[in-house]
Amino acid sequence: MQQAVPEVPLTIPSMITSRAEKLFAGRPVVSRVGEGLHRSTWGEVVERARRLAGALRELGIRPGDRVATFAGSTHRHVETYLAVPSMGAVLHTVNTSLPAEQVAYIVDHADDSIVLCDRSLLSEWRLAEKQLSRPRRVIVLPDSTDTSRDGDALDYEALLAAAEPVETWPVLEESAPAHTSYTTGTTGRPKGVVFSHRSTVLQSFCTGLTDAEGLSSSETLLALVPLGLSQVGLPFAAALHGSALVLPGRDLTPAGVCELVEKERPTVAVGFGAALTGLLDHWRAQRPDLSSLKRMVCGGSPVARPISRAFDEEVGFPVVQVFGMTETSGHGSFSGLPAEVGERPTEETRGYYATSQGRPLPLVEMRIADDAGTEMARDGHTMGELQARGPWVAREYSREGAQPDKFMDGWLRTGDVAVIDELGYIRIVDRMKDLVKSDGEWISSLKLEEQLLNHPAVVEAAVVAVPDAKTGERPLACVVLRAEAGESVTGEQLREFLASRVAASWVPDTIEPVAALPKTSIGKIDKKTLRARYSEDTA
Amino acid sequence: MQQAVPEVPLTIPSMITSRAEKLFAGRPVVSRVGEGLHRSTWGEVVERARRLAGALRELGIRPGDRVATFAGSTHRHVETYLAVPSMGAVLHTVNTSLPAEQVAYIVDHADDSIVLCDRSLLSEWRLAEKQLSRPRRVIVLPDSTDTSRDGDALDYEALLAAAEPVETWPVLEESAPAHTSYTTGTTGRPKGVVFSHRSTVLQSFCTGLTDAEGLSSSETLLALVPLGLSQVGLPFAAALHGSALVLPGRDLTPAGVCELVEKERPTVAVGFGAALTGLLDHWRAQRPDLSSLKRMVCGGSPVARPISRAFDEEVGFPVVQVFGMTETSGHGSFSGLPAEVGERPTEETRGYYATSQGRPLPLVEMRIADDAGTEMARDGHTMGELQARGPWVAREYSREGAQPDKFMDGWLRTGDVAVIDELGYIRIVDRMKDLVKSDGEWISSLKLEEQLLNHPAVVEAAVVAVPDAKTGERPLACVVLRAEAGESVTGEQLREFLASRVAASWVPDTIEPVAALPKTSIGKIDKKTLRARYSEDTA
Repeated sequence: MQQAVPEVPLTIPSMITSRAEKLFAGRPVVSRVGEGLHRSTWGEVVERARRLAGALRELGIRPGDRVATFAGSTHRHVETYLAVPSMGAVLHTVNTSLPAEQVAYIVDHADDSIVLCDRSLLSEWRLAEKQLSRPRRVIVLPDSTDTSRDGDALDYEALLAAAEPVETWPVLEESAPAHTSYTTGTTGRPKGVVFSHRSTVLQSFCTGLTDAEGLSSSETLLALVPLGLSQVGLPFAAALHGSALVLPGRDLTPAGVCELVEKERPTVAVGFGAALTGLLDHWRAQRPDLSSLKRMVCGGSPVARPISRAFDEEVGFPVVQVFGMTETSGHGSFSGLPAEVGERPTEETRGYYATSQGRPLPLVEMRIADDAGTEMARDGHTMGELQARGPWVAREYSREGAQPDKFMDGWLRTGDVAVIDELGYIRIVDRMKDLVKSDGEWISSLKLEEQLLNHPAVVEAAVVAVPDAKTGERPLACVVLRAEAGESVTGEQLREFLASRVAASWVPDTIEPVAALPKTSIGKIDKKTLRARYSEDTA
Repeated sequence: MQQAVPEVPLTIPSMITSRAEKLFAGRPVVSRVGEGLHRSTWGEVVERARRLAGALRELGIRPGDRVATFAGSTHRHVETYLAVPSMGAVLHTVNTSLPAEQVAYIVDHADDSIVLCDRSLLSEWRLAEKQLSRPRRVIVLPDSTDTSRDGDALDYEALLAAAEPVETWPVLEESAPAHTSYTTGTTGRPKGVVFSHRSTVLQSFCTGLTDAEGLSSSETLLALVPLGLSQVGLPFAAALHGSALVLPGRDLTPAGVCELVEKERPTVAVGFGAALTGLLDHWRAQRPDLSSLKRMVCGGSPVARPISRAFDEEVGFPVVQVFGMTETSGHGSFSGLPAEVGERPTEETRGYYATSQGRPLPLVEMRIADDAGTEMARDGHTMGELQARGPWVAREYSREGAQPDKFMDGWLRTGDVAVIDELGYIRIVDRMKDLVKSDGEWISSLKLEEQLLNHPAVVEAAVVAVPDAKTGERPLACVVLRAEAGESVTGEQLREFLASRVAASWVPDTIEPVAALPKTSIGKIDKKTLRARYSEDTA
């Protein structure tokens, strides 16, 4: 009973471009370009995308070639989003906030053929350019009038004006690569993830769910996630569902964002959790009119409950969280309240769910597993490595394959340690590499640090694993004490303090007061250095 | 840059069963069984589905085998929905309102191995059974206590109690068949459509869109489309999104439905447009409390504007329409208002969109085309055959392949003639077979009939094509006149009446007053007979 006629492939030109063009041509695409607002429509954006594709073809770009963007959130960047995959090439959106050497590394690693760069970002690009293994042609997106750094770059608008638009997109397979994105590489080299047309179409589809962003043809989306950080394919999503699109250019300041909300009256905003505090402070001080927003969907980092509560109760719209990473196209799980809490949940209940990582989105599966890939209990306290799989979850890294420390039987290993409760809500308790594995038991460094910080004399705390002949590993804690505490508080006293708060097996054998903890360049505690220091000691 | 690790397949056990079981186990599944309400949960339903799969295996059912259901909307039917495709077999939901001979025909045509039948439907089944080419084993779903017709049938509950549950579902390909459904066969034999796992998963995914049913884990779905008419896979949809499910059994009377709404307080209802008039009358007379409903999604037949308006303004929730057919899994397009109408559309504007067939759902493409498959203009007046394609649109009929009168280059030919306007809204203007093709022009019989009915003397009107040597076909109209009109109104006068209302080329050469029009058994004008009668005349 298998059907003989092949399935309709899920591809960007047939599923996304065609909708923006055929159904939603009149819907606005508004972007801040430099100081002003540029008003466009989906119809114009697709028409210009067809010209861009023609121009890129003329420049020798062929299906499978990589085309890099080094640009902010503007209509021209959206045009590139649609043109490049629709012509069968692969869109590589480069994170413009990376250091120049990393930019050069990923452009070389992805083997990009050409780069579309905002004029306002040319000075940053020129720094990276010097470190490339071979030169790349540059097309300048004219978001400023300062042409001093243009050099021999091509002008985007001149190219479009001269181009023959591509009328018929090529027929593509849904497994063909559409889009590549790199991890930020906080530990080691950035890694590339390649997403297929299928993956991109399904992830875009997902943003229309009531239990996700809820995009639709009657919404106006404010995209506060920079398009350069393209793991969240918001332009694809808006084009598929017919949402109007408002883009802040490169001004993501609270004042700039609020001005845009007052002017364009978006109904849904998607952004980073880390930006909420600044936004809230600005709102409290200036009381801008944000009443058009029905909700804000945040990812990137957990939102503290006092912040989400303030948006609920003061500002007047809910903040909902998506949990994801580059490898999950930014979309893994979604934290809404479960129906089981009833209509009037307590603030404690709300807080519990609001600070969780939520439940997996439809089509995404998430589990916690041990090192052998055995799924662990969903009881809210058993810990395991959080793993994910699904149509828009990476299954390997570009040119590196599916290394076993990153992927396991088709599952992505997130590197996070989590618990999952009976309703499927995920809560991350540690990073895998910071976990202490002692005698088969998993001890969360994060939880021990939280408990240590509850002691009035402790200012900073770091727990790392040190080798142990009998148990494999044991936790060791370093603490910075308040100056007033002097030498009156000892490690032994802190061990007693912990003993009343955690299981006996969790209490570190050594808690060492230190003058200061080693830090990374961005101020995070450098556990790698600590681990090395104490591993030598115990070896 | 193609990925080496294969895509995660979209299958019912991994994408649907696992969600109902792992995330939404406690959410209610309530169904009317006989006189009473049966309360269950998704957890229990999946647990029992695992037992059912074990029992079916024991009875010899293997992957690829067809399992028929002849049942109403109850929890046991939902269990069958989940068990059969998850074990790799193919669910065949038989429309219980078909005549016995058609039931026998489709059970034979699908080559079903076994039938699960409601006890309350056994007498209907026994009639069909006699006409089967070979006997089928029956499993009785005990929705009544009258065992007089059970015969040698197996008891569903006894089988489940004795069964070894299937703990691990087999690994399936997403292109594997999951589910088969037959057209109602109003013209000719019913035709079978087979939907793959991929198709079913994506269609279920679609029901979570804001621009569709909007199912989510906080909704409670009242499924008023009988599960036997399974082109709309509501149990799959609810299981995927975690919606609670309320099933009316076989009581679809307005009183029965309203009682269920008052008791179970569903938030979304999905049903047939044809049932709305009865529901509205009942509501006006009895004023039941339907306040829990946020919207009702209707398919099957167009909803007249006075009806949808009454729900908006009197009852207090909107009626939104999906347009589809068996071949599109019930989901083709969706009629909501476009953003372009602004915040205060006039009643005329609302009516225009409410009576259209709406716009295609994401991932579905719809177009109007001529006989050669050339797409026609989207200008609101050019007519073409409505065609559809997409992941949940049939590409061929079971055992009959993709006959060119039904499918074209991967597009389903709906057999409807439609116009599509600039915003992509579809409006059906005729059935293809009723269209008059005259000198290259398409003349809508439906539109001519509408105009004729505007004449005060005309009671009934039918327009059919008759052969014409010069133009190929010409329209011919038959009209039944009011008794009072007597012979004072002539065909020639009606031609003049039409001439001021439609293009000259549309005016029928002959308008013939007749005593009565031929009708089919269900009271529809029998155009086939008319065509035959007048074709002979003109031949």
